[in-house]
Amino acid sequence: MSHEIEQQLKRAMRGLAQSVVVITTARNGERHAMAATAVCPVSMDPPSMLFCINRSASAHAILSKGAAFCINLLSERHEALARLCSGPTKGEARFGSDAFDMDDEDVPFVLDAQANITCVQDGRMSYGTHDVIIGKVRSVRVADTIEPLLYVNGAYAALAR
Amino acid sequence: MSHEIEQQLKRAMRGLAQSVVVITTARNGERHAMAATAVCPVSMDPPSMLFCINRSASAHAILSKGAAFCINLLSERHEALARLCSGPTKGEARFGSDAFDMDDEDVPFVLDAQANITCVQDGRMSYGTHDVIIGKVRSVRVADTIEPLLYVNGAYAALAR
Repeated sequence: MSHEIEQQLKRAMRGLAQSVVVITTARNGERHAMAATAVCPVSMDPPSMLFCINRSASAHAILSKGAAFCINLLSERHEALARLCSGPTKGEARFGSDAFDMDDEDVPFVLDAQANITCVQDGRMSYGTHDVIIGKVRSVRVADTIEPLLYVNGAYAALAR
Repeated sequence: MSHEIEQQLKRAMRGLAQSVVVITTARNGERHAMAATAVCPVSMDPPSMLFCINRSASAHAILSKGAAFCINLLSERHEALARLCSGPTKGEARFGSDAFDMDDEDVPFVLDAQANITCVQDGRMSYGTHDVIIGKVRSVRVADTIEPLLYVNGAYAALAR
């Protein structure tokens, strides 16, 4: 029964179109960049965001120790970066391209993203295989154009014009 | 400074395209239906979803008492329903249309949605003005077609074909 619900939920989630986001984080020189879609705003008071991460993800080790992170909203032209950050290349090797930079607090971020939302951790809850991590927003950079990269039905997609 | 971050975060969130969802819930005959975009999957073990709700929302009173709820993924043809569930008409009056039905456990749901994901509450965390509510999935119904209604940049939208 639970297995059947899992299969049905996966089917339902294929139809949940979400903006593609890359979470970047670093601690003591260890850097990670991972694509995520389970990301949403929490509150504007204080300005805050959350994301869900599998505790088996390689970035989880430093995030569980409280590392700051950046939520990078990708735009349509970032499909290759999204694939890199969800593919077999792991850890530091994802930073081989010139897609990233580092801010004044040593948090990596995606250059030229639609938005960069840098957060310090301010809450965490474990549930099942995952942690829900809440970040209090420390700084935001936003581009002028809105052309988000979407993921739906197992593929990247764009908004209708 | 915090006000400036809030304004910038709001700008960034205008560019975060999200599927439009209606959360339906009931307790002791009191029914609510509210549009939401801060909704995401948490884990597949157990199958679970979360959403964020302002504690001043009218549905919050029964949700804070543990009411079960349904996450209804809307499709492109549901724009009027999305407007109804985010507009000035509140509470029971939103159920005036024939868009809703009630399941065997007296949880309302949206007929003809792209998916209905019925949950029992299994975790809650307060943060700022909002609660993060985790639901363990009890049942899922999924339609065959994937045509999600999106919300981005202050307007409803659809996927590019």
